Amino acid sequence: MSYNLLKGKRGIIFGALDSKSIAWKVAERAHEEGATFVLTNAPIAMRMGEINALAEKTGSTVIPADATSVEDLENLVSQAMEILGGKVDFILHSIGMSVNVRKGKHYTDPSYDFTTKGWDVSAVSFHKLMQCLYQKDAMNEWGSIVALTYMAAQRVFPDYNDMADNKAYLESIARSFGYFFGRDQKVRVNTISQSPTPTTAGQGVKGFDGFIAYAEKMSPLGNATAEDCANYTIAMFSDLTKRVTLQNLFNDGGFSNMGVSDQVMDTFTKE
Amino acid sequence: MSYNLLKGKRGIIFGALDSKSIAWKVAERAHEEGATFVLTNAPIAMRMGEINALAEKTGSTVIPADATSVEDLENLVSQAMEILGGKVDFILHSIGMSVNVRKGKHYTDPSYDFTTKGWDVSAVSFHKLMQCLYQKDAMNEWGSIVALTYMAAQRVFPDYNDMADNKAYLESIARSFGYFFGRDQKVRVNTISQSPTPTTAGQGVKGFDGFIAYAEKMSPLGNATAEDCANYTIAMFSDLTKRVTLQNLFNDGGFSNMGVSDQVMDTFTKE
Amino acid sequence: MSYNLLKGKRGIIFGALDSKSIAWKVAERAHEEGATFVLTNAPIAMRMGEINALAEKTGSTVIPADATSVEDLENLVSQAMEILGGKVDFILHSIGMSVNVRKGKHYTDPSYDFTTKGWDVSAVSFHKLMQCLYQKDAMNEWGSIVALTYMAAQRVFPDYNDMADNKAYLESIARSFGYFFGRDQKVRVNTISQSPTPTTAGQGVKGFDGFIAYAEKMSPLGNATAEDCANYTIAMFSDLTKRVTLQNLFNDGGFSNMGVSDQVMDTFTKE
Amino acid sequence: MSYNLLKGKRGIIFGALDSKSIAWKVAERAHEEGATFVLTNAPIAMRMGEINALAEKTGSTVIPADATSVEDLENLVSQAMEILGGKVDFILHSIGMSVNVRKGKHYTDPSYDFTTKGWDVSAVSFHKLMQCLYQKDAMNEWGSIVALTYMAAQRVFPDYNDMADNKAYLESIARSFGYFFGRDQKVRVNTISQSPTPTTAGQGVKGFDGFIAYAEKMSPLGNATAEDCANYTIAMFSDLTKRVTLQNLFNDGGFSNMGVSDQVMDTFTKE
Repeated sequence: MSYNLLKGKRGIIFGALDSKSIAWKVAERAHEEGATFVLTNAPIAMRMGEINALAEKTGSTVIPADATSVEDLENLVSQAMEILGGKVDFILHSIGMSVNVRKGKHYTDPSYDFTTKGWDVSAVSFHKLMQCLYQKDAMNEWGSIVALTYMAAQRVFPDYNDMADNKAYLESIARSFGYFFGRDQKVRVNTISQSPTPTTAGQGVKGFDGFIAYAEKMSPLGNATAEDCANYTIAMFSDLTKRVTLQNLFNDGGFSNMGVSDQVMDTFTKE
Repeated sequence: MSYNLLKGKRGIIFGALDSKSIAWKVAERAHEEGATFVLTNAPIAMRMGEINALAEKTGSTVIPADATSVEDLENLVSQAMEILGGKVDFILHSIGMSVNVRKGKHYTDPSYDFTTKGWDVSAVSFHKLMQCLYQKDAMNEWGSIVALTYMAAQRVFPDYNDMADNKAYLESIARSFGYFFGRDQKVRVNTISQSPTPTTAGQGVKGFDGFIAYAEKMSPLGNATAEDCANYTIAMFSDLTKRVTLQNLFNDGGFSNMGVSDQVMDTFTKE
Repeated sequence: MSYNLLKGKRGIIFGALDSKSIAWKVAERAHEEGATFVLTNAPIAMRMGEINALAEKTGSTVIPADATSVEDLENLVSQAMEILGGKVDFILHSIGMSVNVRKGKHYTDPSYDFTTKGWDVSAVSFHKLMQCLYQKDAMNEWGSIVALTYMAAQRVFPDYNDMADNKAYLESIARSFGYFFGRDQKVRVNTISQSPTPTTAGQGVKGFDGFIAYAEKMSPLGNATAEDCANYTIAMFSDLTKRVTLQNLFNDGGFSNMGVSDQVMDTFTKE
Repeated sequence: MSYNLLKGKRGIIFGALDSKSIAWKVAERAHEEGATFVLTNAPIAMRMGEINALAEKTGSTVIPADATSVEDLENLVSQAMEILGGKVDFILHSIGMSVNVRKGKHYTDPSYDFTTKGWDVSAVSFHKLMQCLYQKDAMNEWGSIVALTYMAAQRVFPDYNDMADNKAYLESIARSFGYFFGRDQKVRVNTISQSPTPTTAGQGVKGFDGFIAYAEKMSPLGNATAEDCANYTIAMFSDLTKRVTLQNLFNDGGFSNMGVSDQVMDTFTKE
């Protein structure tokens, strides 16, 4: 589908690792909807990905940036404005990584250095990015900033480890910075809280497949896919949602407001 | 703006009283986006409104229906399907009225007959409507049902009277019925919680102008207008939000997540 | 245990049906903590219960009252003040009943007369009671009103039927009336949202045993018992919680903030 | 008042700086209720406070500990168990400090070193503490861990700066660690979200007096005092609340569920 929803809009998209990435789908959809944008990812992540193919397909430039480095982010924002020919209308922050998860450290026995690194990458990077955009006055009025998050910020998913706390911090940044961005520059800031999604990144979490099946049975509409998330993100970038800000928006087939579903109870009681 | 977001989609829109109504704006925008729909309102409300002008402008048929009458709703749904030539893709429920407010009864000293009547009109009507749609299997898969609500369902606004409780009940219906609608017919059900809006209906609430000014100063992006609400509703009707269900979505310039704004504190401390 | 937490305090306790009732346990614990109180229940419910034994054990008077009748409630409050020798310090509202559940009507196909009756009994009764107390200025300053509720008010439990909507309305009343009660009479109003509890009333819900087992495995501390609820209620009646108001307090072993537990995932994936 | 609610219970209390501190009041009340406990604070903070007077008054030992040092915390927990003669029943975490606030850095232009330091002190310290307790199996079954927090974790208070994000992270830790602590050791973990309180620490926040006046007018029961908070904390340490866990409990005179109060609207519209 294509509606020209983002015609003439410019953006920066973080986190397109490979074709399973939500950010990848967002880039494809944003292109279909008429946007021009810059793609960015950590230098180290890009080597693993196929981001150049995406750039070619969508007519985008790739600018590597370490999202924990204010200097890199400042360069990125400056270059993006130059390449795109003006201020930016939309931003996607799709970055998250727990070193404790990667290294197999349990939540009750982490390395606090890993905790700090994961927090910096997954959450503080969003503050650093917005600080650059805000200080440079780089966003157009009624621009839209979206970060991807997960419901572990509100409720316990034991295997999500310190990413739960990182997402809680990320969502708080969205509100805290969103206030100043709204008040001073008429820019909205929201997070989209997505169903568990079989991306390359998500697959690092223990028992992820079983959990996806559980979430599927708990959600009256089933799990939202990466494509669904891309579509919702497009809606949030578009002029259809200009006064929506400081919100955490669940895109999850209804999971977040379920206590229990008939399907889960059936499976549970069969045992 | 027009994106053909609702091309080929059919709907029923409740509650277009006059050109200030949110439902009126939704009808105009849905028409611009390519939808065909039926307009409906209570027979008594329609006499006061100018709904026929809207119908003409949008190529719609008007079918009067008392939303507290299951019989009227059944007729409405049947006729709508006939007129529109098939199952329905979207529904807007924008109905609310407190008899206690109208008659000047304070929340602590209501007439319980008025309470019951207001609850039936404002909240149970949404259940009755969905029950008709569900029983008749009248919605297409991935159809979208939206009801308008207000944040008084979560937090105290003293002058909102029993409408607060009615909206809490309405939002609960959205979740409760939304589960079955999602599970059985792949239909999503959500509520949009809108900024205070200077509609003809809203103006009945005591001190409403002062409150609108307060909300404006509390909201980093200012109050969402009726047009903003119509645009958000269109996004919720469109295929961009197919896996969003059971949600209460704030369209309020950020008010719902504010503790206090600088502007409100300034006004407050000046005194 | 006994701490004299309610020494010298007077109360009214609704809903002690039999020794499994939460209200029954609250009465026993309030008596142990030094309170005097009146017991009340619907005339029809009392015939089935053994409330007189409880009255004798706790030195209480029983006053029958239909909680949907303002006249009955006014008589109750007046008599209670006379019997107890002064204004009231605490109230327990533990009343709930869905006629649709009793009659086997599915949520998607209710009798709306049953819906109205259940709403009146389960939710509006709380408003009527507070209206009587407020109009008569029957509560002491820093008095405490507690109603029991269930998390179906926030999240979907398919078999909970229209009690979900009733509880949402009840919790909204707690906030709405709690504002005026706090502002004008320094009285706090809260709801306690309890784990599923094997009371005589709870057992009417379909599949209740399986659901209790599920909740037990989801809750890190297991389901809260009726005794746990009584203890929490005593804490809310005591002077330890004087500035807690308008809150919905979960007493549920942690269920409400769980996304999924290891135990539930284990059961689920074993299948 | 004294009820012997904590008779025989042992605890560790963090953060008693001076007689205005909430932790100070908690220590006094815990002593009145029959508990024995160890007091602790950062070496640097203790020089400024009068903690020894409190220790004498309550028969407590003071053990200095830097709450960001796992080593210090391990020593503290070991020594506390030795001094108190057994496992611990309750913990109060009342620690928070934003270096950005102290140094006058605006939220939109922080020093990220300050951000990291404030996060470590205010939030990660809670994880480090629980990790020590959990690894050493230092808590008795049905023990209770409470951390103090503020509603800025949920809603925007512009001058609260990065403490908002720190509190969001802290509350997430309470849920995340609370799950494992409940499941494995039957220990509950909760946060109490307190009204703005005129402590020595709180007074560092810009415009704090005006904000306290605002919160007072917004809250139907007025702001909760440090004494109120101490009482609520005692209730949470007692056996009255054994199945309450993973919760964030508002002790705020009702502020958290207010949209607007009559008093605030009156002040606002007078202007």
